[in-house]
Amino acid sequence: MQYKTLEYKVEEKILTLSLNRPEQMNAFTVDMAGELVDAFNRASDDDDVSVIVVTGKGRAFCAGMDLTREGNVFGLDESQQPSVEDMQNTFNIPGVSDTGGMVNLSIYECKKPVIAAINGAAVGVGATMLAAMDIRLASQKARIGFVFEKIGITPEACSSWFLPRIVGLSQALEWVYTGDIIDADTAKEAGFVRSVHAPEDLLEAAYELARKITGKSQVAITLARQMMLRLSAAPHPRDAHNVDSLAIFYTSQVDGKEGVKSFLEKRDPEFTSKSSTDMPSFYPWWK
Amino acid sequence: MQYKTLEYKVEEKILTLSLNRPEQMNAFTVDMAGELVDAFNRASDDDDVSVIVVTGKGRAFCAGMDLTREGNVFGLDESQQPSVEDMQNTFNIPGVSDTGGMVNLSIYECKKPVIAAINGAAVGVGATMLAAMDIRLASQKARIGFVFEKIGITPEACSSWFLPRIVGLSQALEWVYTGDIIDADTAKEAGFVRSVHAPEDLLEAAYELARKITGKSQVAITLARQMMLRLSAAPHPRDAHNVDSLAIFYTSQVDGKEGVKSFLEKRDPEFTSKSSTDMPSFYPWWK
Amino acid sequence: MQYKTLEYKVEEKILTLSLNRPEQMNAFTVDMAGELVDAFNRASDDDDVSVIVVTGKGRAFCAGMDLTREGNVFGLDESQQPSVEDMQNTFNIPGVSDTGGMVNLSIYECKKPVIAAINGAAVGVGATMLAAMDIRLASQKARIGFVFEKIGITPEACSSWFLPRIVGLSQALEWVYTGDIIDADTAKEAGFVRSVHAPEDLLEAAYELARKITGKSQVAITLARQMMLRLSAAPHPRDAHNVDSLAIFYTSQVDGKEGVKSFLEKRDPEFTSKSSTDMPSFYPWWK
Repeated sequence: MQYKTLEYKVEEKILTLSLNRPEQMNAFTVDMAGELVDAFNRASDDDDVSVIVVTGKGRAFCAGMDLTREGNVFGLDESQQPSVEDMQNTFNIPGVSDTGGMVNLSIYECKKPVIAAINGAAVGVGATMLAAMDIRLASQKARIGFVFEKIGITPEACSSWFLPRIVGLSQALEWVYTGDIIDADTAKEAGFVRSVHAPEDLLEAAYELARKITGKSQVAITLARQMMLRLSAAPHPRDAHNVDSLAIFYTSQVDGKEGVKSFLEKRDPEFTSKSSTDMPSFYPWWK
Repeated sequence: MQYKTLEYKVEEKILTLSLNRPEQMNAFTVDMAGELVDAFNRASDDDDVSVIVVTGKGRAFCAGMDLTREGNVFGLDESQQPSVEDMQNTFNIPGVSDTGGMVNLSIYECKKPVIAAINGAAVGVGATMLAAMDIRLASQKARIGFVFEKIGITPEACSSWFLPRIVGLSQALEWVYTGDIIDADTAKEAGFVRSVHAPEDLLEAAYELARKITGKSQVAITLARQMMLRLSAAPHPRDAHNVDSLAIFYTSQVDGKEGVKSFLEKRDPEFTSKSSTDMPSFYPWWK
Repeated sequence: MQYKTLEYKVEEKILTLSLNRPEQMNAFTVDMAGELVDAFNRASDDDDVSVIVVTGKGRAFCAGMDLTREGNVFGLDESQQPSVEDMQNTFNIPGVSDTGGMVNLSIYECKKPVIAAINGAAVGVGATMLAAMDIRLASQKARIGFVFEKIGITPEACSSWFLPRIVGLSQALEWVYTGDIIDADTAKEAGFVRSVHAPEDLLEAAYELARKITGKSQVAITLARQMMLRLSAAPHPRDAHNVDSLAIFYTSQVDGKEGVKSFLEKRDPEFTSKSSTDMPSFYPWWK
C-alpha cells in the first residue's frame, strides 16, 4: 500500500514511519489521520516489524492541524455536524470522533513499541500524538507546544489520559493552560523526552534504542507493552497479578526456553515467536 | 460578601485569594474551611475571574489546623461525634466529613485554574490544601510539612489521591511517614513546586503565569481543567476520547472560530465565552 | 519460626529482613517466596515491628529467579501446568499464580512501611520486588535490571502496576523493553531510588530513615500507608475523602490526643496504639 502523507519503510525489523508533507510542515489532515491508523494497524500485525520509529520529513515533526481545512478535521460532513445549540441542550451527541484520538487509540492498541524521534516543531495534534508514543527522543531543534488554548480550543487525542502519566498532573496542566512552546531541554527536564541529540544524530540514537528491542521475543514484548499500558491504570495490583501470572508462564514456555538456554550457554538467543500468530488466548484480556 | 478569614480581591480577571489570619499564622479553622468552600464556588461561577492565585497574608501560608480548637475541626457537635468504640465496631459511620477535604473537593470542582503562591510555612492542612491546587510556586522562605504523623494522626483532604499524582507514590509516602519539613529547593527537586522565587518576587511570578491564562477562552480552559483532572484517572484512553472529541468540536465552534481567525490574521484573539453560561450539555459529563 | 532463605531480625522496632542465600547471590526460589510471604504477614501483625528494612546478605540483593530450578517457580507440579496449546485456546486457565506476585501482594497488604536497602545486584524478580516496596535506598554498587525480556519472558510481580507509579510510564517501558542494567545514579535520576550511599553507609542510612517512623503511632502509620496505596488509584478524590475523614477523626481520638498534648507541651509524644488490635472497623475498607 502506498501512502500519500506518510513514508512507511522497514529495515532490519524497524519501521520508520515518517510524516511526509514537508512543504506543509507535515500538517495533520483527515487523510493523514486515516493513513496513520492504517499504518499502525498494519505494523501491529506485520511480523517484519518489531519496533516503530516515528519522525517527520523536512524541518518539522508536525505543525498541528492543517488550519486551512479546519472545518473537516472531524471527518464529518457539514450536514452531520451538531450545532452549538445541540451541544448545549443535548447530552446525546453521536458521531463526533476526533481524528487525533483515533490515531492515538491505534497507537495504544498497537502490538509494537513506538519510539518518537522529534526532529523539529511538534505542535497541537503534533504534540498530543507524541504523548501516546512509548518513548520520545528530541533533536535540539525540537519545539513542542500544546497550543490548543491559544486558539480557544481544548487539547484532544486522549492527551488528558496520556500526558499526566508522563509528566505528572501539574506540569500537564501548566503546558495546556499556557500553550507555551517548550524547547528540547525543558522537555527533557520535565521527563517528556528521555534524551536530547544534535539534529544529525537524532535518528541514529532512536535506531540504537530500537535495535535493543528488535532481537527480543515479539510475543513477550507485545505482552509487556499492553500490560504496562493497561494494568498501570487498574485499581489494584491483583489485577496485574492475574494477567502477569499467565503472561510469564506462557512466555516461559514459548521463547523463554530458548532464553534460559542461551543465557546458560552464554550466547545470543534466537527467538521465534510472532505477534501475528502466537499470542495466547488471554490476549487481549480486556475483551 | 465579606469574609472573616480570607481576603477576596479581583483585578484584571485574577482573583487573589489570601488566607487572612496573619496573627495566627493563617491557622485553619472550621470558619476558614466554610469561607474557602464559598470562595472557590463563588469564583467558579464569577465570569470576572479567569484564574485564582492563593496565598497567605503575613509570614505564613497556613500553619495547619488551629490546635486550640482541635476538637471542632470536623464541624460536628460533641454529641454527634462517634466514639472510638463505635468506630472499632461499626463500619457504618455517617456524618464525619473532614473540613480540609471539603475545601479540596471545592477546588477540584472549580471551573477556574488555581495557582498557589507559597509565601511561607505550609504545614498540615496548609500542605494538603496545596496538593489540590493545579500549579505551585514557592518563596525561598516556603517550608512545607505533611506533619500529621508527628502528632499521631493521618493526612487528610484527599491528599492520598492528589499528592502521589504530583510527586509519585514513593516520595509521597516518605513525606507522610516522616512528617519532615521540606524547604523550597527540595520541593522543587521533587516536582511539588514548579519554581522558587525571592520572597518579594513570588506574587509577581504567580501573576505572570496567571496572565497567560486570563486572555484565554473561559469555556476552553474550564473544559481542559476538568478533563485533565478526571480523565487522567480513567481506566482507558477511550474514556478520554469520548469526552475530548466533544470538547474540541464544541470549542472549535465557540471561541475556536475567533482563535483560528486571529491566528491567520496575526493578531491577539478576543474570546467571549463565559464559564457561567456557555458550557456544553456534556459538562459535567460525570453526572 | 526459623527461615531457610531469610534472616528475620528485630531490633528497636525495626525488622531487618535479609535475603539469605549469599552463595547463590540470594537467587529467588519457591521456598524463598513462601518464606517472604510468611515474613511480611508475620511482621504485619507483630507489634514489635514498626517498620521493615529489606536487604541482601553478601554481595547481591537478589540475582533473580534461580534458573537452575526455573520449571518450578510457579509452584505447580508439572502435571498441573497448562500447555502452550491450552493457553492459546482457552481463556480459562486456573491455578497459575506467579510467586513473585504473591510476595508483592503480601508487601502491598502489609501494615508496616517497607524500606529497601539495595546493597548490590537486583535483577529480574529482585528488581520487581523492589518496585512493591515503599522507599528505596541504593548502595553505589547497586545494579538494577528488569531483565525479563532478555530471556524472552515478561516482567511479573505486579510490576506493571507498581513501576509506572514510581518512575512514570515511559521510563518503565524503556527499562522493560531493553532489559538494560541500571546503575545507582541512573536509578536516582529516574526517581527509582531516593538516595545513593557508600556501601558501608547504606544500612545505617536506611535505619536513620526507619527511626523517623518507629516512634510514630502504629495505627496512624498503617492507615496512611494503606490510604496512599489504595486511594491514589481511586477514580475520584471523593473516594479518598470518604476514607480519610474517618481516618483522621479516628486517629485524632486514639493517639492524636497525646500527639497534640505533647506538641503543646513541647515534648516527644508517647504513642500507644497497636496495629494488631487497635485498627478501626473501616480498616480494611476495601472489603
